[in-house]
Amino acid sequence: MSKKIRLGAFLPGGGQHVAAWRHPDSKADGAVSIEYYTELAKTAERGLFDAYFLADGLAANFGGNVSVGVSDKGAGFEPVTLFSAISAATKNIGFIATASTTYEAPYQLARKFASLDHISHGRAGWNLVTSAGDATAKNFGLEHQLDHADRYEKANEFVDVVKKLWDSWEDDAIIADKASGQYFDPSKVHEPHHKGKHYSVAGALNVPRAPQGYPVIVQAGQSEPGKEIAARTAEVVFTAQQSFEDAKAFYSDLKGRLAKYGRNPDELKIMPGVSVFVAETEEEAKAKYQQLSDLILPEAGLALLAGLSGGEVDLSQYDLDGPFPELPKTQGIVSRQQMMVDIAKKHNFTIRQLYQWVAGARGHWTIIGTPTQVVDQLQYWFENGAADGFNVLPPVLPLSLNDFVDLVIPELQRRGLFRTEYEGKTLRENLGLARPENQYVKKEKQAKAA
Amino acid sequence: MSKKIRLGAFLPGGGQHVAAWRHPDSKADGAVSIEYYTELAKTAERGLFDAYFLADGLAANFGGNVSVGVSDKGAGFEPVTLFSAISAATKNIGFIATASTTYEAPYQLARKFASLDHISHGRAGWNLVTSAGDATAKNFGLEHQLDHADRYEKANEFVDVVKKLWDSWEDDAIIADKASGQYFDPSKVHEPHHKGKHYSVAGALNVPRAPQGYPVIVQAGQSEPGKEIAARTAEVVFTAQQSFEDAKAFYSDLKGRLAKYGRNPDELKIMPGVSVFVAETEEEAKAKYQQLSDLILPEAGLALLAGLSGGEVDLSQYDLDGPFPELPKTQGIVSRQQMMVDIAKKHNFTIRQLYQWVAGARGHWTIIGTPTQVVDQLQYWFENGAADGFNVLPPVLPLSLNDFVDLVIPELQRRGLFRTEYEGKTLRENLGLARPENQYVKKEKQAKAA
Repeated sequence: MSKKIRLGAFLPGGGQHVAAWRHPDSKADGAVSIEYYTELAKTAERGLFDAYFLADGLAANFGGNVSVGVSDKGAGFEPVTLFSAISAATKNIGFIATASTTYEAPYQLARKFASLDHISHGRAGWNLVTSAGDATAKNFGLEHQLDHADRYEKANEFVDVVKKLWDSWEDDAIIADKASGQYFDPSKVHEPHHKGKHYSVAGALNVPRAPQGYPVIVQAGQSEPGKEIAARTAEVVFTAQQSFEDAKAFYSDLKGRLAKYGRNPDELKIMPGVSVFVAETEEEAKAKYQQLSDLILPEAGLALLAGLSGGEVDLSQYDLDGPFPELPKTQGIVSRQQMMVDIAKKHNFTIRQLYQWVAGARGHWTIIGTPTQVVDQLQYWFENGAADGFNVLPPVLPLSLNDFVDLVIPELQRRGLFRTEYEGKTLRENLGLARPENQYVKKEKQAKAA
Repeated sequence: MSKKIRLGAFLPGGGQHVAAWRHPDSKADGAVSIEYYTELAKTAERGLFDAYFLADGLAANFGGNVSVGVSDKGAGFEPVTLFSAISAATKNIGFIATASTTYEAPYQLARKFASLDHISHGRAGWNLVTSAGDATAKNFGLEHQLDHADRYEKANEFVDVVKKLWDSWEDDAIIADKASGQYFDPSKVHEPHHKGKHYSVAGALNVPRAPQGYPVIVQAGQSEPGKEIAARTAEVVFTAQQSFEDAKAFYSDLKGRLAKYGRNPDELKIMPGVSVFVAETEEEAKAKYQQLSDLILPEAGLALLAGLSGGEVDLSQYDLDGPFPELPKTQGIVSRQQMMVDIAKKHNFTIRQLYQWVAGARGHWTIIGTPTQVVDQLQYWFENGAADGFNVLPPVLPLSLNDFVDLVIPELQRRGLFRTEYEGKTLRENLGLARPENQYVKKEKQAKAA
């Protein structure tokens, strides 16, 4: 069996394009309808996507400015709660929920993801974020966010604690022997008793070991500490890459960091984001792109740019059509902010030109064309060391997801690049990732062998 | 329409009885099966219960002693995650999930409950607990739990913050006007900017206002601060009462505290817990009780008593069949611990006698008899100022829940004491509780009127 492309479906309320909700065929208030999200999940499952991915933040995201009222990204459901409901209506698709190492407690986070993994029968994934921005900090009792480096130092310890909690019950710890009255085997329960620089957690977790051992661990940071934590712990990395050259460089860089953590390159799947406008003809595809671009209000464009910078950069003070300004350095989402500046410089964009350009995919790669043209590009990245798969960001929902499933998936399958049925029952099985051995069992084995 | 009894269904994994999981007809490992929980919910919905209630803790509850391995209560799903999945498979029953004011952040808690309320279309309730016990504190970076009084002081402020967050979007804040590009009305979004003694939360919440305004607020503490926070904020109170006299005294006491908070007695429903062994004949009902009592192991009995005291009281050092010992005062679950001591003294119980007595209902009221005998007692409490309804704690699941639905519900309905169909779509509507007005809208109205 040849290697297959992995596909994530990034399906927020309205769609990836900033003006998506204004599209005539969008469900404008979809962001708070469980029926709508469930329908999206079923479509993605029909397309045999590996996973449904949801980004998340812990502050109402008005793009740094509540007064304009043009963003549909202000609000959305808590992802684990949402995915749990959707899991009841689906069978195979995985669920990658974003959760914060800075503002959640390890015990709570470990528990809700273990619960989702049990409830979905092994389809949970955790997208680890450190939550940039003062707006979020202020919702959790702080005046300012922690430094970027501090957030990542905490995140590294956080993951270790969470894994200890996930391992605190061995897979066969529960016996439930009615005759003897023995419910569990105490020798197979391990209290972590973790005492580190940032966390002190006695354990054990009050959820048995999850079907996947650990939910699949996902990361999306592109900064230096982001790449290091990914190399150390992540099994899937979502990334924003604008060109094949950048994507290939990122891919080599990140895969090259795995060895020092004793990991094999195959243990980490790199999936750049891609926003696809696809139609039977190139003209139709371009028309789809233009239709959405024409729906962007300037206020929404500015709010988008502010949002991408973690709410810290307000560009409304500058001339929309003048040269792109020099920006102060912040502690926010360093990598995304730098990418915006790079794009503006590279294309010599004004602010207006930048937001129009960025609006379609919010900083991600965009492909506009026929199924053949689209798959040509995906295949090139996949076969030339730039991607193990892609995180698909449909510009407008449900329309662009349907397009992808009906037009792109069959072409991928025709070329033998994508599955024709789910390989396994769990997200790990479908992604081709091993089920992690319990660390306490492993230690006991090593102690016996020594 | 005459006043009706309200019913909650308390349905943990195995059942309320400590030996439930050893019963021949129990699903011993039900605690981690979503299909099992969903089936219980459907049965409770068939019985027209107002709500499915789940207690919860944030530590593996081994009854203070992991080494014995006889408790089936060590682990269970995070309740909001679980209820979200069940909501997808049910239509009317409400979901009361327990969550902690001591170990969760107000922003996260407000968000997950608002999400559940949206996802279930108005069927969420929050059972507010302050989480006693050092075992829990040690899972969240502390060596010891906060004092009882401190926990309740924080809880009072916590509820205020959470309500501000739930009100941060007015009901009609989202316009989603495709033509103008206006997604929401900024004048209808209210950032709490809360700065209190214990919490500092800027807001706004990133979930629109919930279908019920606020999820139904539930409380179960019976201590003095517990009763005060209930009088101030709770809409349902679950309580453990052993006798009609105690229940009536508690009912009068608590209802009498409402006026000083400007509340009407009807705004709070008091629902004592009751564990029912019911059968067509009294002999059969007694046999059901005896069958479970015979299945209790001493280790399980001791673990139960330790668990009821928040894991702080280890009775294994005392003679099981000697006189009940004097116990040191702890900062744990003060009210439950005192009740245990009171029961032991009242009946002159040994430790063994106490755990056998307590095991059937873990400190709650027990009724053993025919449907007529059972309903006679429920009716007496309901019609004589001791209860607005009951939290039903089936001794063994799914068996005792089926018994209650098939035998007790029809008798309650025959007497006109219980609904024959759901009155409304939301938990509030079924409980007869008003939908709370948005506090910011209320203030604006008051300001205009002044």
